[in-house]
Amino acid sequence: VNSSQSDHPLPNEEMFVKIALNSWNTWQSRADKLFDSLTDEQMQTEIAPGKNRAIYVLGHLIAVNDSMFPQLGIGEAKYAPLRETFVSKPDRSVAELPAIAELRQSWKELSTRTSASLSQLTPAQWLEKHALVSEEDFAKEPHRNRFAILHSRTAHLAYHIGQLIFLTK
Amino acid sequence: VNSSQSDHPLPNEEMFVKIALNSWNTWQSRADKLFDSLTDEQMQTEIAPGKNRAIYVLGHLIAVNDSMFPQLGIGEAKYAPLRETFVSKPDRSVAELPAIAELRQSWKELSTRTSASLSQLTPAQWLEKHALVSEEDFAKEPHRNRFAILHSRTAHLAYHIGQLIFLTK
Repeated sequence: VNSSQSDHPLPNEEMFVKIALNSWNTWQSRADKLFDSLTDEQMQTEIAPGKNRAIYVLGHLIAVNDSMFPQLGIGEAKYAPLRETFVSKPDRSVAELPAIAELRQSWKELSTRTSASLSQLTPAQWLEKHALVSEEDFAKEPHRNRFAILHSRTAHLAYHIGQLIFLTK
Repeated sequence: VNSSQSDHPLPNEEMFVKIALNSWNTWQSRADKLFDSLTDEQMQTEIAPGKNRAIYVLGHLIAVNDSMFPQLGIGEAKYAPLRETFVSKPDRSVAELPAIAELRQSWKELSTRTSASLSQLTPAQWLEKHALVSEEDFAKEPHRNRFAILHSRTAHLAYHIGQLIFLTK
């Protein structure tokens, strides 16, 4: 236990992880509420003239967040087929999108499972390399670890929530 | 030194801090480039119909990020008067905004100084309480520390960059 320099009851390493997970869960929860608050009609609406529709951003966030499982080495991607439609291709380039109800359900399933899975990693595991970097590169760039992926995905989520909020007020 | 469980040369606590600071600096740098890329005319433009103008978001980000200095207990706020215009009040409710050139200059000065100041804190200092929480509350809620402020402000920055990007493409 490495708590000599602090007053709180958690070892310092666990507190660093807890703060980062709190941030993830805060933005995840904001996204949950935001998507719940948007009607199916709003989901089909462009966030701003000529910009992505909300349904595209929902699919995009499912695809990107789902990819964290293989990237972090904590499980399989469950929604990998969405990547082609919602990451590789821009909005309106695919004729048939999945049904909104199906995407809403996938988002909820993914949110719950992601939160639970992320909470299982120990501080030392958070500092291990992620799957997008080779052993050789990680030896030179040890900051390319799981903790960096978590930070990147949290900010990515906040970035898109900043856009989606335009539909609500 | 607490590096027994990892392969990287930094103590684990320093690596957690480094990742969070990398994330801050990444989004700060994106904001720098974005504001540099927007013309003064674009800065006066609404991000989407009826939404904030870019100049308002710039002032808002200066006011909020500047507040980190007193919140983290690492210095004085230098742009406190902007809070009234860009945080307390909504866009278009104040007749006279500061000149865009002045806000651009303040943003640059603040960015450079913030990055330098944040890099001075030790891991143990990041886990100390921030100024918005009392000693009593911090004893019960030790996650209300400086590291949490950093995470909140990084995501806040990403949130607004997600909006500003609409002006660029």
